[in-house]
Amino acid sequence: MSTPHRVKVALPEANSRGYEVLVGSGLFGSLASILSRFCPAHRYAVVTDDHVAELYAVRLSRMLHGAGYRTDVFAFTAGEEQKTRETWTLVTDAMMEAGCGRDTALIAFGGGVPGDLGGFVAATYMRGLPFVQVPTSLLAMIDASVGGKTGVDTPAGKNLVGAFHQPNCVIIDPELLSTLPEEHLRAGLAEAVKHGAIADAEYLAWIEQEADTLLAGDAQALSRLIVRSVEIKAEIVARDEKEVGPRKLLNFGHTIAHAIEALSGYSLLHGEAVAVGMVEEARIGERSGVTAPGTSARLRTILSRLGLPTSLPIDFSADDVIGRTRTDKKARNGRVEYALIQDVGTPVSREGRWGHPVADETVAEVLAGANGNR
Amino acid sequence: MSTPHRVKVALPEANSRGYEVLVGSGLFGSLASILSRFCPAHRYAVVTDDHVAELYAVRLSRMLHGAGYRTDVFAFTAGEEQKTRETWTLVTDAMMEAGCGRDTALIAFGGGVPGDLGGFVAATYMRGLPFVQVPTSLLAMIDASVGGKTGVDTPAGKNLVGAFHQPNCVIIDPELLSTLPEEHLRAGLAEAVKHGAIADAEYLAWIEQEADTLLAGDAQALSRLIVRSVEIKAEIVARDEKEVGPRKLLNFGHTIAHAIEALSGYSLLHGEAVAVGMVEEARIGERSGVTAPGTSARLRTILSRLGLPTSLPIDFSADDVIGRTRTDKKARNGRVEYALIQDVGTPVSREGRWGHPVADETVAEVLAGANGNR
Repeated sequence: MSTPHRVKVALPEANSRGYEVLVGSGLFGSLASILSRFCPAHRYAVVTDDHVAELYAVRLSRMLHGAGYRTDVFAFTAGEEQKTRETWTLVTDAMMEAGCGRDTALIAFGGGVPGDLGGFVAATYMRGLPFVQVPTSLLAMIDASVGGKTGVDTPAGKNLVGAFHQPNCVIIDPELLSTLPEEHLRAGLAEAVKHGAIADAEYLAWIEQEADTLLAGDAQALSRLIVRSVEIKAEIVARDEKEVGPRKLLNFGHTIAHAIEALSGYSLLHGEAVAVGMVEEARIGERSGVTAPGTSARLRTILSRLGLPTSLPIDFSADDVIGRTRTDKKARNGRVEYALIQDVGTPVSREGRWGHPVADETVAEVLAGANGNR
Repeated sequence: MSTPHRVKVALPEANSRGYEVLVGSGLFGSLASILSRFCPAHRYAVVTDDHVAELYAVRLSRMLHGAGYRTDVFAFTAGEEQKTRETWTLVTDAMMEAGCGRDTALIAFGGGVPGDLGGFVAATYMRGLPFVQVPTSLLAMIDASVGGKTGVDTPAGKNLVGAFHQPNCVIIDPELLSTLPEEHLRAGLAEAVKHGAIADAEYLAWIEQEADTLLAGDAQALSRLIVRSVEIKAEIVARDEKEVGPRKLLNFGHTIAHAIEALSGYSLLHGEAVAVGMVEEARIGERSGVTAPGTSARLRTILSRLGLPTSLPIDFSADDVIGRTRTDKKARNGRVEYALIQDVGTPVSREGRWGHPVADETVAEVLAGANGNR
């Protein structure tokens, strides 16, 4: 194992102690010593899903037992549809049954679902256990690893119940991506493109140039990508832990993405929806006169290189999409606001505000021509 | 309304902004203006139980509507057995249904159950809403108002799921106690006796002297009591937000209390169990040689004056009680620790540790003679 990269996540409220994201090939094999340093505990509860458990639970348990730690694995059925209060209840009760007390630390191990749900168990078990994240999907590595968001879905929508609960550290081993299905690797790359688009044009160019290497799963290239994405997200979140200011930037592409994800009944992967959302929101920005012409075309080229979709599924109507964005609106104070960019690498901020109200008609005009038929 | 007393709750971690507990007769009538100052929001969600709602919901809604605030009342069935994840789910979903977004602040209104459960809804709704507590029971006023503990019970035990979530402020109007059943008033006074016993002998003497006035529900005497109890608890919690050090002091009487509460199937009120627990734990301290002889007798006299029980229910065996305290132990690192006092008003601390491991045999000897037959 080479020396890991360490990205410090400093949080804006004096509140939070901050933590480190460790990135390195082979880091998973050093889990026990990392835990003893960053998250010492009498025993560990591993919360994961059955897919990840099948691939890695034996190895993980063996490592921790070998280091003398009592370790229990709590695996639930894989899938976003399991990210519910019911699964949270099942995991919590199983941990109670196993006698986990305040001397336990939790390891949220897996993709976004085990990460968010495991984090929410940690946030609420006996009013909070220390925890670490060990993400196994690219999306979880570069997105969920920073910001301390935990939670579950409810019938009313995604992530509507949860808590901010910062991990003691995040341990990222790109070698774990070797078992990730390729479409999930692509989907994760969409968030990396977003990081480039809102903050770093050079990074975006590098992703474009390295597209084939990244898609082939090269651990070194993926390490570089993860480190840079985590740095960008950490910089933004450090300025704004609870989403009142610049953190809104991270929503670039996401207003449309959330709408089409929901319309697809979540058959579209989040990253696929974000790819489409970024192109459409760049077009909305171009039409609104705040985004440089050609920006959406540039994003489309890069996303296509990565094998990601770049236009609205043909059977989605502009009206349906806009209807869904209005649901978002209701939940947040009465307006549909978009995070827009001036150009790749440069966000738009007007008088310190990072959300831009856009008229439904503008969105309708853009989306009307967006069903794959341009 | 006279000028309210304001007790500042400063929290130890730089983390928490701290908040104020406002205490004053008639304060409930000024709720709207207090909210506009301490917890401004576009709309308010009142979480309460059906008993409190029947008494006060119309008045409260009228006040807030009159001040121009959109206000919805979410009332669940009263009772400790409703303090569950299921009720938390019902309330959360009803608020979603009503369209409450991040522009909403929550008012946890009622005794301990609406306070803890409403607080937990606030802690987890869209990852956290601002909230205020408006307690209506004496116990909630002097105990739950300080410390930011929120949560619900699970089949494995009380308060096992929850979060630390600090309110924006706590609004205490002793006039609301006029509708509190007398046994609940007495039970609340047990916690005030505990505050005297662990921190302030003069306060304890004052409670003894004013026993009749307090039991008669005199709002002025109750105001003084609430202010002093909140001050004591705030001082202790300020040194130790998350229960690692001096906050353990607040557990005086509670190791035994939790055991007999559970054994009674929660038919004993918490304060009644605490009254018995304080006498027994003072006797345990006397027998262990750390508590001055006569301390348990002194507590017994005061608690009897307040009409509270002071000995173990006759049908409880020492073995059963000890068995239950061992369950506590399992959850917390392998030992039954007691918070003990040297004398009324003075806690025992050994080398900065506030928990005292006591051998089961000592507890057994004390409890064996404790079934009301001394």
